[in-house]
Amino acid sequence: MNAPDYGRSFASWREACAAPWQAYTRHPFVEGLGDGSLPRAGFLNYLRQDYVFLMHFSRAWSLAVVKADTLAEMQAASATVHALLHHEMALHVSICEAAGISRAALAATEEAPQNLAYTRFVLEAGYSGDFLDLLAALAPCVLGYGEIGARLLGQAADTPYRDWIETYGGDEYQQLCRDTGALIDRAVADRLGPAPETLPRWNQLAGRFATATRLEAAFWELGQP
Amino acid sequence: MNAPDYGRSFASWREACAAPWQAYTRHPFVEGLGDGSLPRAGFLNYLRQDYVFLMHFSRAWSLAVVKADTLAEMQAASATVHALLHHEMALHVSICEAAGISRAALAATEEAPQNLAYTRFVLEAGYSGDFLDLLAALAPCVLGYGEIGARLLGQAADTPYRDWIETYGGDEYQQLCRDTGALIDRAVADRLGPAPETLPRWNQLAGRFATATRLEAAFWELGQP
Amino acid sequence: MNAPDYGRSFASWREACAAPWQAYTRHPFVEGLGDGSLPRAGFLNYLRQDYVFLMHFSRAWSLAVVKADTLAEMQAASATVHALLHHEMALHVSICEAAGISRAALAATEEAPQNLAYTRFVLEAGYSGDFLDLLAALAPCVLGYGEIGARLLGQAADTPYRDWIETYGGDEYQQLCRDTGALIDRAVADRLGPAPETLPRWNQLAGRFATATRLEAAFWELGQP
Amino acid sequence: MNAPDYGRSFASWREACAAPWQAYTRHPFVEGLGDGSLPRAGFLNYLRQDYVFLMHFSRAWSLAVVKADTLAEMQAASATVHALLHHEMALHVSICEAAGISRAALAATEEAPQNLAYTRFVLEAGYSGDFLDLLAALAPCVLGYGEIGARLLGQAADTPYRDWIETYGGDEYQQLCRDTGALIDRAVADRLGPAPETLPRWNQLAGRFATATRLEAAFWELGQP
Repeated sequence: MNAPDYGRSFASWREACAAPWQAYTRHPFVEGLGDGSLPRAGFLNYLRQDYVFLMHFSRAWSLAVVKADTLAEMQAASATVHALLHHEMALHVSICEAAGISRAALAATEEAPQNLAYTRFVLEAGYSGDFLDLLAALAPCVLGYGEIGARLLGQAADTPYRDWIETYGGDEYQQLCRDTGALIDRAVADRLGPAPETLPRWNQLAGRFATATRLEAAFWELGQP
Repeated sequence: MNAPDYGRSFASWREACAAPWQAYTRHPFVEGLGDGSLPRAGFLNYLRQDYVFLMHFSRAWSLAVVKADTLAEMQAASATVHALLHHEMALHVSICEAAGISRAALAATEEAPQNLAYTRFVLEAGYSGDFLDLLAALAPCVLGYGEIGARLLGQAADTPYRDWIETYGGDEYQQLCRDTGALIDRAVADRLGPAPETLPRWNQLAGRFATATRLEAAFWELGQP
Repeated sequence: MNAPDYGRSFASWREACAAPWQAYTRHPFVEGLGDGSLPRAGFLNYLRQDYVFLMHFSRAWSLAVVKADTLAEMQAASATVHALLHHEMALHVSICEAAGISRAALAATEEAPQNLAYTRFVLEAGYSGDFLDLLAALAPCVLGYGEIGARLLGQAADTPYRDWIETYGGDEYQQLCRDTGALIDRAVADRLGPAPETLPRWNQLAGRFATATRLEAAFWELGQP
Repeated sequence: MNAPDYGRSFASWREACAAPWQAYTRHPFVEGLGDGSLPRAGFLNYLRQDYVFLMHFSRAWSLAVVKADTLAEMQAASATVHALLHHEMALHVSICEAAGISRAALAATEEAPQNLAYTRFVLEAGYSGDFLDLLAALAPCVLGYGEIGARLLGQAADTPYRDWIETYGGDEYQQLCRDTGALIDRAVADRLGPAPETLPRWNQLAGRFATATRLEAAFWELGQP
């Protein structure tokens, strides 16, 4: 199966860091979600860390609203923040509660170093750079989950993590990924014109993407028991 | 009629800059809205500038999400961003269209110096300071409009600007003001404890509030024909 | 006399806002410095506001250190900060003291709205944009003073403001201007490649430059008696 | 031997994270510096990573200039930036060159994850918080090195790392530590008054300090062979 098409910028950045991208999207944690071999304890640990992650990730998408140039860019980033804070966090809380992790326990999760490294890198890239730097650092998480979800959904294996796979492989999330890819491509064109790959700036953006990809792979380690 | 109660921090900061607050909330532009004497051309010019203002104001509230410490703070600020970007901006566009100002004309509005001064001051206060600095700079606009709306609504004069008055004097906006006041008071208590007025920090926050109040008064000048 | 050569980016941005640039660099305040007709009271008021300005301008150049990509960029921006904070501010204090404005009076200067608008615009451009956005917003002040100084020095008129003219028209400041122009050109090339003028990004940078130029012209009004 | 006195805020924050502070300042790497048992390869690896660290650390101190409230605060932070960028980096380069690591090799050092985590945490704390948040995150590095240097200098053991110990244990660096401690105490008093330890804000600042301390301990791991 081919990877889904999330636009031209993503394709270019992804290709420029093929090995880290592979390490991230084919990580043993991911394969364990797909074939059901991932121990429950690992998954729950991941969920707890991911709750903390989502707080900072929402902050980073809010920073994208601040750094946007047009109303359309602001609305796109703001819709993502709203979805994260008012829906995805709630979903997370309910999954955790069903697994016996109370809301209080969730909120008391101590942030792991890999979690801290990843989120602070993204936020700092956004603060120190511009809208494109921030989008390049945000992209591996959003779009990598989409690519993983789509692939695992196509495998149809018997796994207790079917819900997770259907969330990220499902139509709604796939549409979000295509929209995010289009937001990035339009933002790039509006700033860097029709041949951004020829500019030194492109390597800098690809570098942001590559570092975030490496940090995302390290994040999966938190889900190893 | 007494001013509505939007909490303790607001009351303290407002009292500390009584003269600028008066100059802002009793500005001839405001009185002209209330008694109907404001020329239409002035109101339309104000609307056009306010459209640009709302873009930057939405960015500033998004920065509040980034600078928040708790999920509750993030959700409160994010709800305001969402309301501004997905509802209030649309309302603005429709009022302007009804008045013969096209969406394109609105988007092409050249930002006036008073507008630029105000919005950049708020954003910079947020970037350079913390969550409280940003809230103190945001408060005069949100809560001043509430106070003005409530007062003018109570006057029940015959004015073509009834819609404007009912929007800001109405229940929904008044509730937003009470919620914002409560957000500020809780954020202050969570950081500065039960007696914030005794700290040097309080004067700094009151200073942010006072400067924003002065810049808000200058903004009304844009609505003078 | 031709304007001094401060590099290619400056020349392009300057040309793109010819009228505001003229209004800034040929402002009556400037002409009054040159021919000596500027009243002393106006000059002193300008000095007081400029002291406040230099504080925020130093902060903005420090932000450039934060936003730089290379050690060379960091060192260039840091050297400017050091010169501003440890030499230029001291010079300002001594000139003011000689004119009967005490250090305490200087520190107590109330920031004028035009001053606030300008400095917050520059800082916000830096925070929300990247290194290039910040440099484009900083350039009109640094390089405009150089251009004015060089022109007035060439006129050799009899004026009590000879010191001011010799400071900004003199070799040391002119070298700083050439260095700053070279820093900008190199930073542009390192990010946007050999033909930056062809990119949409260029218009955005030229826009930052043009707005800062307009705000700089408004700043001179503070020196009018 | 007692730890040197770097002021009241430092003493309070240090005490509040006694175990991580011990893990940081008594780390095997540190003990290996003191008794000479640290392998040369480990020390050189540390130096290479520290070069990258100093770049980001200089950026963080520059951010302190941006976030400062007074000229005195700005000058203190700016002097540190200047010393880091124009002296300490040069010292680093010369030590590395003497050890056979060329300037080009140094500049090409790949940033380790622990390095990235630490520096981005500090910078993000500064961007998202205020001047105090930034100082609290900067303090463990500056003052911890001072404490370690003073202790190891007092031990007078035979070690090839004598230069390192004399740098950080020596008078000049110890004075910098006392000055930094005084800067922090004054900044705290100017904002939070005479009893900052009673405020919720204090725990937040102590939290910044504690996290930075943990990340600093993790950084030493880079020097393990």
